[in-house]
Amino acid sequence: MIVVMKSGSPEAEVARITQELTTWGLTPEKIVGKHKVVVGLVGETVDLDPLQIQEISPWIEQVLRVEQPFKRASREYRHGEAGDVVVSTPNGPVHIGEHHPVVVVAGPCSVENEEMIVETARRVKAAGAHFLRGGAYKPRTSPYAFQGHGESALNLLAAARDASGLGIITEVMDAADLDKIAEVADVVQVGARNMQNFSLLKKVGAQDKPVLLKRGMSATIEEWLMAAEYILAAGNSNVILCERGIRTFDRQYARNTLDLSVLPVLRSLTHLPIMIDPSHGTGRAEYVPAMAMAAIAGGTDSLMIEVHPNPKKALSDGPQSLTPDRFDQLMKELAVVGNAVNRWPQSAAAIV
Amino acid sequence: MIVVMKSGSPEAEVARITQELTTWGLTPEKIVGKHKVVVGLVGETVDLDPLQIQEISPWIEQVLRVEQPFKRASREYRHGEAGDVVVSTPNGPVHIGEHHPVVVVAGPCSVENEEMIVETARRVKAAGAHFLRGGAYKPRTSPYAFQGHGESALNLLAAARDASGLGIITEVMDAADLDKIAEVADVVQVGARNMQNFSLLKKVGAQDKPVLLKRGMSATIEEWLMAAEYILAAGNSNVILCERGIRTFDRQYARNTLDLSVLPVLRSLTHLPIMIDPSHGTGRAEYVPAMAMAAIAGGTDSLMIEVHPNPKKALSDGPQSLTPDRFDQLMKELAVVGNAVNRWPQSAAAIV
Amino acid sequence: MIVVMKSGSPEAEVARITQELTTWGLTPEKIVGKHKVVVGLVGETVDLDPLQIQEISPWIEQVLRVEQPFKRASREYRHGEAGDVVVSTPNGPVHIGEHHPVVVVAGPCSVENEEMIVETARRVKAAGAHFLRGGAYKPRTSPYAFQGHGESALNLLAAARDASGLGIITEVMDAADLDKIAEVADVVQVGARNMQNFSLLKKVGAQDKPVLLKRGMSATIEEWLMAAEYILAAGNSNVILCERGIRTFDRQYARNTLDLSVLPVLRSLTHLPIMIDPSHGTGRAEYVPAMAMAAIAGGTDSLMIEVHPNPKKALSDGPQSLTPDRFDQLMKELAVVGNAVNRWPQSAAAIV
Amino acid sequence: MIVVMKSGSPEAEVARITQELTTWGLTPEKIVGKHKVVVGLVGETVDLDPLQIQEISPWIEQVLRVEQPFKRASREYRHGEAGDVVVSTPNGPVHIGEHHPVVVVAGPCSVENEEMIVETARRVKAAGAHFLRGGAYKPRTSPYAFQGHGESALNLLAAARDASGLGIITEVMDAADLDKIAEVADVVQVGARNMQNFSLLKKVGAQDKPVLLKRGMSATIEEWLMAAEYILAAGNSNVILCERGIRTFDRQYARNTLDLSVLPVLRSLTHLPIMIDPSHGTGRAEYVPAMAMAAIAGGTDSLMIEVHPNPKKALSDGPQSLTPDRFDQLMKELAVVGNAVNRWPQSAAAIV
Repeated sequence: MIVVMKSGSPEAEVARITQELTTWGLTPEKIVGKHKVVVGLVGETVDLDPLQIQEISPWIEQVLRVEQPFKRASREYRHGEAGDVVVSTPNGPVHIGEHHPVVVVAGPCSVENEEMIVETARRVKAAGAHFLRGGAYKPRTSPYAFQGHGESALNLLAAARDASGLGIITEVMDAADLDKIAEVADVVQVGARNMQNFSLLKKVGAQDKPVLLKRGMSATIEEWLMAAEYILAAGNSNVILCERGIRTFDRQYARNTLDLSVLPVLRSLTHLPIMIDPSHGTGRAEYVPAMAMAAIAGGTDSLMIEVHPNPKKALSDGPQSLTPDRFDQLMKELAVVGNAVNRWPQSAAAIV
Repeated sequence: MIVVMKSGSPEAEVARITQELTTWGLTPEKIVGKHKVVVGLVGETVDLDPLQIQEISPWIEQVLRVEQPFKRASREYRHGEAGDVVVSTPNGPVHIGEHHPVVVVAGPCSVENEEMIVETARRVKAAGAHFLRGGAYKPRTSPYAFQGHGESALNLLAAARDASGLGIITEVMDAADLDKIAEVADVVQVGARNMQNFSLLKKVGAQDKPVLLKRGMSATIEEWLMAAEYILAAGNSNVILCERGIRTFDRQYARNTLDLSVLPVLRSLTHLPIMIDPSHGTGRAEYVPAMAMAAIAGGTDSLMIEVHPNPKKALSDGPQSLTPDRFDQLMKELAVVGNAVNRWPQSAAAIV
Repeated sequence: MIVVMKSGSPEAEVARITQELTTWGLTPEKIVGKHKVVVGLVGETVDLDPLQIQEISPWIEQVLRVEQPFKRASREYRHGEAGDVVVSTPNGPVHIGEHHPVVVVAGPCSVENEEMIVETARRVKAAGAHFLRGGAYKPRTSPYAFQGHGESALNLLAAARDASGLGIITEVMDAADLDKIAEVADVVQVGARNMQNFSLLKKVGAQDKPVLLKRGMSATIEEWLMAAEYILAAGNSNVILCERGIRTFDRQYARNTLDLSVLPVLRSLTHLPIMIDPSHGTGRAEYVPAMAMAAIAGGTDSLMIEVHPNPKKALSDGPQSLTPDRFDQLMKELAVVGNAVNRWPQSAAAIV
Repeated sequence: MIVVMKSGSPEAEVARITQELTTWGLTPEKIVGKHKVVVGLVGETVDLDPLQIQEISPWIEQVLRVEQPFKRASREYRHGEAGDVVVSTPNGPVHIGEHHPVVVVAGPCSVENEEMIVETARRVKAAGAHFLRGGAYKPRTSPYAFQGHGESALNLLAAARDASGLGIITEVMDAADLDKIAEVADVVQVGARNMQNFSLLKKVGAQDKPVLLKRGMSATIEEWLMAAEYILAAGNSNVILCERGIRTFDRQYARNTLDLSVLPVLRSLTHLPIMIDPSHGTGRAEYVPAMAMAAIAGGTDSLMIEVHPNPKKALSDGPQSLTPDRFDQLMKELAVVGNAVNRWPQSAAAIV
């Protein structure tokens, strides 16, 4: 349920209403949108009468039910407005959302050594990326495959962050590592295989860093938004949704089926910002540029692209990684589409 | 197998080689590319020695095996060059292919009456479309649902063709109707449910009109190209591949999953031109614009978009149809992306 | 809608009611069940008032709507009773249905030559099979693969029929071949790839031989029943539904995913008899026995099993074919489960 | 790699070989099969020469490579022999495996209160079940849905265990709860959504209780066996694989697609015992009996069936739960098939 306030409602009145609703056993959340202030209500609202709430204050414009099973994640919860996630990075705050330029995350699948990660950071920064991705803890199908360098890789990510000023995005696989990761990461990633690891969702929801929530390999859009709801319900409202390819009947050429239709679908359902990962989504470097282009024209808020200084020698996911040179060129191609749809940063590829 | 001729090979020499290879029991096809002339060979080539063929003429540059199971449909068969399909329409020939502007096909799911189809034809023509789509024979899940007006609808399509000058694309469901359809249609469509109706494929391959081959709902890319191969092998080299959404585990919001990754994948595998149908691909009019934008940026050669003068009263597929006004606006939005990637006709939406 | 007659209703009265309803513009079908006579009504029944029909005769017990989109195929259409399909074969009529022993169809994927098909017929007959399967026209992914011996293979099937007395089941791919096929076949098969070839469905519905309708590779159960409805609506009430494996995300070991849950699901939805094809369903001979056992315990009415005298040299589908010896042994294993659930013929494997 | 010892090899010699191979940097595991003793070797074996190992002792019969990516889980790792998992329960040890009678696990989705869980335990025990299932921690799609009673539910499971003598199977969602759960549970369950939660797999692999590993909703068989390999590699060799329905394109009638073909497929690939869960696999109580029958005839080693004293009032998964009476009847039906295939306990349904 949401309580929509009239324009110009005094802050004190909003505070009074919030206070009052708390005494009803609810947990009101004040949401300041571009046009309106809204008070969100989640809890035992089934038996509540909207009219009864309406009577609390003449400053209340409307009281509306959220019909979706995902309450806080729904677009209605912000009265139809887009949200954005603001991430602090050494280079300054980066906004990810519908009303901002496309944000690009780039970097290797896993952090292999200091030289490669710092060098990659510098190269992708120069090409216009805002974030460096790199795995310290890697979910691998085989227990005998390289599992990431773990804690020591976190130190290397910190070094790359210092050297480049880029924000860091890295995955948490085990809640026990969350504190260490959150010290280094500007955004904490929950991987596709853990999208319905509800214990982990609750824990990333209880900490402060923004969360990148990858879609599970066969998760429906509703399940994905319900997973986001776990994080939001635990208190963390900074969630970015990342499509990375779903599992279908055909895996002969592309490893997964990148579902770009999430762009209009999520836009209509949720206020959360959207990221597209064409590298995992296709599994082959040669398919990445076309899908990155398509994602921007389709309205994505951000892109995640794997870049490795030497894909052939990568410890993981080499076939889907671009070289820094190819990434540099791709950013110029993306700028053409990004500029056409008014979603490209004016300072990035164009000027650098 | 393909025989690549040296630049400047005399036509007579190519003819002589073709003649010679015929005597070996093969069926050579001469393919004139932009840069090279190639002689394609399909048949019992497993035991042929490329060197032996090479010796036939000093004008032969190379003899190469086509490794893909789809021979004529493979990109190698044209020595890596894109093909295009040229369709005669009252308004002149229309080229569909990688080196041409994006071609737009628009119109209703089914032909309902003369007024609606002629009016729709005029409106989509004015907005920049090159082809009118409209079903005379409709594949419907239920035997009790509207099955299309059949032969009388063909007459209405002919009237709309006369009135607008647009080319006509309509579906054949029964080989018995093929002659009648081919009289009116400029492109004959094989629907998703018939993609592996091999009898029908052979028959559309044995007639002259270009064929639009829709991807089956759960067809792999290889199966799709093999279905195209049936048509090519029967003698019709003008095949356009149309992605219209595949069936996955999630159908709650979008009816199908539009697989835009076919764009880079098909581009690398085949010389055949590609069409994207975001209307069937998503099943909801509100999702169509974003996916059409994405398709152009991702490199499609053509688009098929459902337009109906009154979607709410449509006899079929209303929820996925745009109004003529919304289509008009969409064409302007598409032009922005199309122009950015140099794939938009200079005469169309801008000038008309 | 169905009109349920009271027990003991005079035939003349049923005829009178049928006559009367015809004058209302409906097409009544008289269905004689084990316990009740029912008059089925399909057509424009939405605006009909059941009470109004009830008043036609005091012998009418109830008038009920069929809520399912598949009317004639629904279990309600026979007032909850199972149907059965009776097939005439040289050895006498064979009943396929819920209240009859499991019927086994066996034979090679395609008819290769007279010796192999006659020999196979004799062997599978001796082991207890009632029908011989064998393809004359084969749907193959590649236009360059063996397409079946066509008309000459039909003659060989006729010879095998004469030699063994078994009924013949073979596939029709092209309506133009239907007459020739129906001359030889006791059951005409529509293959998975043609399950939604609605033109073909109408044509097999308009002829007299029973039809085996294979489930499409990604057909939902509702779509499958709607395809059956096309045949029933065209006048042929003898349809057998055959599950042959669906397409899912995993094809590494089994080629398809045999969906045995159709057994209880179809049983509750339809009166039509069910066949399970574990050979196509798994694609590997070594998986066939376990799935055939499971199918019987799960309640199937019939089984289709590929048997080839020399699987390694089969022109198609060798890896999923059993040898005659293995089939013989399997029939003995099946008898154990079949007898346990009272669904095994007393004359077959036990006695032979 | 496995080292197969000759029959009659002295224990001291096996110990000596194990010792020797340890000095080579390997971690040998002694596996005592029915017919042979095998020493399993996992590690950096790529460069090892089987002949070199062979020379260690004249008692070595053969040294074989395990070609599958899952080493310890593969059937080859036990030289083709089936394994079994022996679980201690108050009523004595229960063997789950190919050479033992089918073991039945029954109980409610979640533990709701003491009366219901103790009563259910008594009823399913009387009907012939060996284990009680019941969720204390429940993975739920929505953060607002009932999440299980947690620790207090563990106490109720302990009470039901005492009252009935049944073994207890319950799910762990968070490694932090593992110790508490392992105190009460005789088998620890990893749920479908956590099948690739590799951190959790490592932790259940590092404790002593047998582990029931449910297949992920869209996990391939190889991924499932690799998940089992994580547990085996961490030191716990008692893993049971539970199929509970996969996600496909059709969810209209059955909630999932129960993939019974895992029975022959897993049997050929792994020595681990198999459980089938027709309750989650179909999602509807009325479909459970047919699939349970099929599972036994197809060769399952165990069944998991949801039973609730009052399914209509269940806090979760009511529609797929049987009443105790229906379960009682089902066990009698299962005994018929189980006895026919010689996989039914002689003491259970027959005698009780």
